[in-house]
Amino acid sequence: MSEVLKPTIQTANRGDLAQLVAERERHFIFTLESGASLQTHLGIIAHDDLIGLPWGSRVQSHLGKFFALLQPQLDDLLRDIPRQTQIMYPKDIGYVLLSLGVGPGSVVLEAGTGSGALTTALAYMVGSQGQVISYERNPKFSKVAQENLKRYGLDQRVSFKVQDLAAGISEKNIQAAFLDLPDPENYIHLVRQALIPGGILGCLLPTTNQVSVLITALKQHNFEKLEVSEILHRYYKPSATRLRPADKMVAHTGFLIFTRKYANFSDLDTSKTQA
Amino acid sequence: MSEVLKPTIQTANRGDLAQLVAERERHFIFTLESGASLQTHLGIIAHDDLIGLPWGSRVQSHLGKFFALLQPQLDDLLRDIPRQTQIMYPKDIGYVLLSLGVGPGSVVLEAGTGSGALTTALAYMVGSQGQVISYERNPKFSKVAQENLKRYGLDQRVSFKVQDLAAGISEKNIQAAFLDLPDPENYIHLVRQALIPGGILGCLLPTTNQVSVLITALKQHNFEKLEVSEILHRYYKPSATRLRPADKMVAHTGFLIFTRKYANFSDLDTSKTQA
Amino acid sequence: MSEVLKPTIQTANRGDLAQLVAERERHFIFTLESGASLQTHLGIIAHDDLIGLPWGSRVQSHLGKFFALLQPQLDDLLRDIPRQTQIMYPKDIGYVLLSLGVGPGSVVLEAGTGSGALTTALAYMVGSQGQVISYERNPKFSKVAQENLKRYGLDQRVSFKVQDLAAGISEKNIQAAFLDLPDPENYIHLVRQALIPGGILGCLLPTTNQVSVLITALKQHNFEKLEVSEILHRYYKPSATRLRPADKMVAHTGFLIFTRKYANFSDLDTSKTQA
Amino acid sequence: MSEVLKPTIQTANRGDLAQLVAERERHFIFTLESGASLQTHLGIIAHDDLIGLPWGSRVQSHLGKFFALLQPQLDDLLRDIPRQTQIMYPKDIGYVLLSLGVGPGSVVLEAGTGSGALTTALAYMVGSQGQVISYERNPKFSKVAQENLKRYGLDQRVSFKVQDLAAGISEKNIQAAFLDLPDPENYIHLVRQALIPGGILGCLLPTTNQVSVLITALKQHNFEKLEVSEILHRYYKPSATRLRPADKMVAHTGFLIFTRKYANFSDLDTSKTQA
Repeated sequence: MSEVLKPTIQTANRGDLAQLVAERERHFIFTLESGASLQTHLGIIAHDDLIGLPWGSRVQSHLGKFFALLQPQLDDLLRDIPRQTQIMYPKDIGYVLLSLGVGPGSVVLEAGTGSGALTTALAYMVGSQGQVISYERNPKFSKVAQENLKRYGLDQRVSFKVQDLAAGISEKNIQAAFLDLPDPENYIHLVRQALIPGGILGCLLPTTNQVSVLITALKQHNFEKLEVSEILHRYYKPSATRLRPADKMVAHTGFLIFTRKYANFSDLDTSKTQA
Repeated sequence: MSEVLKPTIQTANRGDLAQLVAERERHFIFTLESGASLQTHLGIIAHDDLIGLPWGSRVQSHLGKFFALLQPQLDDLLRDIPRQTQIMYPKDIGYVLLSLGVGPGSVVLEAGTGSGALTTALAYMVGSQGQVISYERNPKFSKVAQENLKRYGLDQRVSFKVQDLAAGISEKNIQAAFLDLPDPENYIHLVRQALIPGGILGCLLPTTNQVSVLITALKQHNFEKLEVSEILHRYYKPSATRLRPADKMVAHTGFLIFTRKYANFSDLDTSKTQA
Repeated sequence: MSEVLKPTIQTANRGDLAQLVAERERHFIFTLESGASLQTHLGIIAHDDLIGLPWGSRVQSHLGKFFALLQPQLDDLLRDIPRQTQIMYPKDIGYVLLSLGVGPGSVVLEAGTGSGALTTALAYMVGSQGQVISYERNPKFSKVAQENLKRYGLDQRVSFKVQDLAAGISEKNIQAAFLDLPDPENYIHLVRQALIPGGILGCLLPTTNQVSVLITALKQHNFEKLEVSEILHRYYKPSATRLRPADKMVAHTGFLIFTRKYANFSDLDTSKTQA
Repeated sequence: MSEVLKPTIQTANRGDLAQLVAERERHFIFTLESGASLQTHLGIIAHDDLIGLPWGSRVQSHLGKFFALLQPQLDDLLRDIPRQTQIMYPKDIGYVLLSLGVGPGSVVLEAGTGSGALTTALAYMVGSQGQVISYERNPKFSKVAQENLKRYGLDQRVSFKVQDLAAGISEKNIQAAFLDLPDPENYIHLVRQALIPGGILGCLLPTTNQVSVLITALKQHNFEKLEVSEILHRYYKPSATRLRPADKMVAHTGFLIFTRKYANFSDLDTSKTQA
């Protein structure tokens, strides 16, 4: 079993992704390297003092502050990603993963890569046998995302393509695709060709006007089972005696659109049709 | 690559899980068996006429109605599950998967099994290398869930345990656990022992009173990073020229509580503590 | 003090609007008339047995069922209105009243009248010194609304106009106007002329496309302080020990748009301008 | 017609409440007084230059900046109130006014006065013939609220009582009452005695725990027609071509509880009962 991020009671090794969590839930995510040290406002910790310890050990900085040595979870990574663009929220990513049916062994396409938050979640879920193809036309964005994924040990599962979707999609037999682009309507014909029959397309769009344009295009291109929705996530103050919703919330990230390429009757190869 | 449900352009084989989708998106999910036939109000189709066809083929019933032959997606399975109890909604399942960090190779525990909706999603996500341990004290519920999972080809990834959590949790080194029970506060000490350091506990509770009780218990048992929230999912009528939210929505399923077993300082084995 | 609907401890008189509330909150609203009788599935009650009783009295039907004799509240009337068209919900009406600043003595215009739910609320709030001008081009709708308002004793405060707004608005010096029409953009120039400086225009529109069209028109016509919003109303099951939101809710009625006619600089009469 | 705040095309007089609105919707609310002047960052304007002008006139500051001279609307006042305590939001106030059935001539009680936002709305709605009785045990809060109401010309409609509700409610025949207090359950028996039959009680409470306690108390005191709900108000960015909800919203102010004092059968004076 060589799965990335799979937690077991074992020792922290050189090259592992690690997390130190201090009191009040301050946390630091990094890869263990010989000779390196983590510098925080709570003190310095040498990586060599961590390598070889069992996960879950308690360690101390040179200032005497205590930390727990843990393997980071997916949710920790998503909240840790440096933001160069608007990144997707867990509320949306969870529903996207489920709606795309992305799991072990899946082959999934996304555009654009952006900061790599969704890329991270997709790469995590497809496992070592699956693949994520991630298009991004801005080389700077792609570079930072690649660094993020590499840091999390997930980069081997992703084909980063620094190009515009408009130049064509060379991949075939994609199970699912997700477009986080301002004008998905311009690329859905290319995505359709790349998808397997029954394949799923998802999009995220901030404005109602964009949604209207996309709906029209999806219908023109024979996409079916169209679903438009939005996810609202409301946090509560976790007090047993004064339980109440938080004062403020994120009111909008984007509208989520999911649709299917059913082997619809007009574009089926008749040679495949049963007599 | 022997992943269950992994779609490729290949032919439908005996034993495969298949889906026939008719116009207006009526769909039927079943396992292909020689000699069997699917009986629908749109006509009869013999399985033997499907076995050997490429996925995506168009087929016809004896009444002349057309269907597309597809491999079902996770979302199709979740909406197909026969309901014997209140089942979890995709809006909640997606966020649960993400928050628990369940992915390829994960070892995760749930209780109770119920109708097996979450079990299905968990089994799908952990892949052939992971494992789901699913407790349910009602033998009738567990039996139906086992049948559902078997039908989807996911039963080998699940250890169904027909017993009350109160009798003890024999498993160790669990990465994440999810309790969909009315009184999770009575079992969290057992779950804590079963979790790895850094392991995640999630719960779903319908009432605010239950949430208050659970918060108190979680704090008593040194769980940390407590998050209470709810997910609202609002569908839109997918019309380009008359885009608007649907008239009605599900207003409440339950409150989601997530928390971590950090290797907190009081219960750490001092032998693991760095000098 | 001759205010309609003003509750005092006094006796129920001929011509008063009355409400009989039975156990389990079944209620019946009607005007007290000599010789009339109320026929319900809980039995018959003669109006003459009610006239002269103090409000709050307990009365009995010929079947021995008990009722409380009460003066109906505004909320009772709004929930009692027979629906011939989609009627506005209390959640929206409350915010509309506040945003339009409708109070005692206000002169307010609405179109269309519809079933008269908003008309009822406006007429209630403007009092005997105010006035509601209510346009409705469908004579059938206007007739039913007039009957409703008459039944509630509020019809003297309303000028019902059975005509299309497009034919012109003869009124001037209107404080506030509310358009519940599918195409308010076609009438806002007329409304603008009818409004006082500082006057308020409100609109209710179900689709995002309509909102976009209206925003463009409002900006063209120099309306200012534009606000677009929606009100969501979520009910809870009122149980002390199992407090939780109701399972379902109304997800959408319409978008509320409010804007002001400030005496904007381009259309001010220069003779009014201070030197 | 001597209604306060009633806009007509007439001239601005000494003692009137006025509003100057500059470009970009900056606005200033004040009472016109001879010899006074308004000092803003957009320049100074002498009140004497405004007195006698028709409402809607355009005026200029000594810096040459233009303003429109308007009568403020209710919504303007509510957003203008200086905040010494958490004040109620328009979303809640609108629904409260409607649910309490507060209109011209109503006699309504509230506690506590707080900053006077709800007091302002109630006083506006009851008109010159109605009355608001407002309890506040903190003299400092009451004083500021009184000054606010006086500034808006609404203070004659309000009886400010600087005392704790626990000391008793001397008023009788109240149509509706609203308690914005942390422990309304301690006062509802007093409110019940003050209400007319059919009278309405409303409460605002921030936490679910408080709601549970109140529900229990209301049932013990025979209140009926219990409704618990919350109002969510979601603003949109008012762009015709990029229409979308605002990024953030107020997620919670409080739960609204409404209930009625029906002349319930147990506490009716039998002398009023029909034979």
